[in-house]
Amino acid sequence: MQFKEITGSIVAPIGFLASGVFCDIKKLGTGKGSNKGLKRDLALIVSETPATVAGMFTTNQVCAAPVKVCVERLRKKNLAQVVVVNSGNANACTGKQGMTDAREMVSFTEKTLALSAGRALVGSTGRIGVPMPMDNVRAGILEAAMELGFTAEHADHAAEAIMTSDSRSKQIAIEFLLGGKKVRIGGMCKGAGMIQPGMSATGARPAALPHGGLHATMLAFITTDAAVEQKALQAALNEAIANSFNRITVDGDMSTNDTVLVLANGLAGNKKFNLNGAEGKLFQAALNHVCLELAKKIVRDGEGVHRVVMVCVNGAKTIQDADAVARAVANSALVKTSWHGGDPNWGRIIDAIGYSPATVVEEKIDIGYSATGGKKILWSLKHGQPTLATFKELCAAVAPKEFELHINLNLGKANAVMYAADLTEEYVDFNKGDVTDASSLGG
Amino acid sequence: MQFKEITGSIVAPIGFLASGVFCDIKKLGTGKGSNKGLKRDLALIVSETPATVAGMFTTNQVCAAPVKVCVERLRKKNLAQVVVVNSGNANACTGKQGMTDAREMVSFTEKTLALSAGRALVGSTGRIGVPMPMDNVRAGILEAAMELGFTAEHADHAAEAIMTSDSRSKQIAIEFLLGGKKVRIGGMCKGAGMIQPGMSATGARPAALPHGGLHATMLAFITTDAAVEQKALQAALNEAIANSFNRITVDGDMSTNDTVLVLANGLAGNKKFNLNGAEGKLFQAALNHVCLELAKKIVRDGEGVHRVVMVCVNGAKTIQDADAVARAVANSALVKTSWHGGDPNWGRIIDAIGYSPATVVEEKIDIGYSATGGKKILWSLKHGQPTLATFKELCAAVAPKEFELHINLNLGKANAVMYAADLTEEYVDFNKGDVTDASSLGG
Repeated sequence: MQFKEITGSIVAPIGFLASGVFCDIKKLGTGKGSNKGLKRDLALIVSETPATVAGMFTTNQVCAAPVKVCVERLRKKNLAQVVVVNSGNANACTGKQGMTDAREMVSFTEKTLALSAGRALVGSTGRIGVPMPMDNVRAGILEAAMELGFTAEHADHAAEAIMTSDSRSKQIAIEFLLGGKKVRIGGMCKGAGMIQPGMSATGARPAALPHGGLHATMLAFITTDAAVEQKALQAALNEAIANSFNRITVDGDMSTNDTVLVLANGLAGNKKFNLNGAEGKLFQAALNHVCLELAKKIVRDGEGVHRVVMVCVNGAKTIQDADAVARAVANSALVKTSWHGGDPNWGRIIDAIGYSPATVVEEKIDIGYSATGGKKILWSLKHGQPTLATFKELCAAVAPKEFELHINLNLGKANAVMYAADLTEEYVDFNKGDVTDASSLGG
Repeated sequence: MQFKEITGSIVAPIGFLASGVFCDIKKLGTGKGSNKGLKRDLALIVSETPATVAGMFTTNQVCAAPVKVCVERLRKKNLAQVVVVNSGNANACTGKQGMTDAREMVSFTEKTLALSAGRALVGSTGRIGVPMPMDNVRAGILEAAMELGFTAEHADHAAEAIMTSDSRSKQIAIEFLLGGKKVRIGGMCKGAGMIQPGMSATGARPAALPHGGLHATMLAFITTDAAVEQKALQAALNEAIANSFNRITVDGDMSTNDTVLVLANGLAGNKKFNLNGAEGKLFQAALNHVCLELAKKIVRDGEGVHRVVMVCVNGAKTIQDADAVARAVANSALVKTSWHGGDPNWGRIIDAIGYSPATVVEEKIDIGYSATGGKKILWSLKHGQPTLATFKELCAAVAPKEFELHINLNLGKANAVMYAADLTEEYVDFNKGDVTDASSLGG
């Protein structure tokens, strides 16, 4: 499905405003208030009218205060009008004070924008275990409210404000016809390390954990002027996340703060639709597209990442087995280092397939490569045995910055995909920390 | 329990001989036969008399031919007299020819040493997916048989011959009194990468996979002159491996070839004993000691490893939960890089605890450090909240080459330990492969 990309990201849909300011949340000591040349760290996303809202949240049992506040609010309310987001501090492992601070962030934002109580949501990313500098946050919210605007530059400021170790901001917007009306979906996200989201609508873990477990802080905020009923919006988001953010891994670590929120204000004026009808399917496809493109931007910008590999597992007995194989391969240190080296080492891949919790049969396993979106697969292994593909051919297949790895277990019909990253010296160097800086204690 | 360490490793027990030779299994083209200054690659371990034998094998479903041959033989026979081991080629993913070759390795060894059929076992480690160079292997076995001897130097040669990416050989021997008789246990092992063994006595996976899954090639060969009945020997080995080799991780990757074999020839002349009696418990403690010391040598010599951390989890609801938390922390890329940096980053640790499949409660979690074997724990987190320990104190606690990390979940009485390694730029550099060398295709 092709969708027309447009500019403006989160403010492309009618009736959405955004802003991003610097309020020194890391307390670098350069003064509060407006951007003094330092990266912005507080964003507001506002809808002119109340919007239906849906969310997905980390299933990590160690869960940040802003996540708890969003889950709590979404349980009670189906409408929201503003999201306040900060970087530099995750407000995780901050105890009762953390909850008080997260609640103040939403209530202060509501008061500042003169909205009814309960209309604000909150997201945070950054250091773990450090109290929120609420004086700076309040000053930031006041300034961000002054700065709100409808232009792409405003969206750029917001997208910059949510970045942490990201090297660039991540944004998208599309436009399509829904029931004869032009509707738009915009989105922005952040995330580069501590990335293997496993989100659910309530933050609660599924009764049966998927094989391979669940395992960043990634944040994504999606806006649309389509009119969508809340239940349909949540169902569509569940489906979109299952095939995008919950299918990516940079380092296999699931964060305490992962959050995706979607706000639908209905200002496009389309008629409400049934998710199972043609219009519903179109909306679902559009939301899937936005989420997947944003999710892929996270992997491409992952800490130290040189190569991105789409791991496609087919022919598993069950979806859980397909998922387990895809995650085992996508998170294997030996496979990831071989990708970094441009080494088509199938021995490490079949080893990871074999130790995954999935049921596999060595003599049935196929392993091959294709270009991204390519139809022709170069098989390196068929039924557990090396093919006649030459080493040179295989090296060429794994040389591009992005390629697809195809694994066929030949045991059934279930399949799964993971978007994975290589493991580089830069990742290690970046994450080994700076022990001259006590601020690295958490996060 | 303290045991007296003695010299001689695998030939320290009465009646054991060993040898190690170079037969060019990687076919470097420098000629076959005796050591021409290159690392030895084929070893024999021989008992003068038939010995009872027990084994533990990788539970990877992609399992090498030598493992299959050992499992097959142990199912039928309780006696063995020789183990033939090679490095440079894993004989894994080598199909029917691989099985034929592994069977020929044992039968050729038996004929060479004039032993009854069924008395030989085999182990292999090295590249995956490359056919065994059987001409070289046969020449190696013939030469190794000529070189067999009882001295520590012979054991050194054997220990060198099983090394792959190991920077040094790993050996131990102890002596103790069992029922009034002096008995000895010797052992050698190898392993540096693809290390997170999960072994069982049959290579079959347990019906219920432990939380966190199972995840090197590590090989270990243990000899003893104690008289031990086969069932007791297997039970003792199961127990010893559960608390040693199955509790280590370098990179979280479980190999296709992990094998531990123990041969007990009874030449010390002790009376047979019950494993539950005082003598049984002493033998168990001795075997535990040998296995744990060997296992720790593997982690210390892990690829690129700078720091070894004993992750001690206490207060879990179940042993599975304790194991899951220990493995999540021990295999977290972010935790491992912080260890490398000497950074006491508890945020990453509690994040990994939270996404593990175990049940945990953030507000109950304690995290602290002690010196190896130290009684005093410096807590960085108590009940989910930072303590007054200073950043300088915490940095000092994680600065040593080895230290203990203590995690108390405060939910129950179950505990588990993992011996883990940091993740360094050297690990990545070593494993990214040499794509100028087609031999890196497998393994």
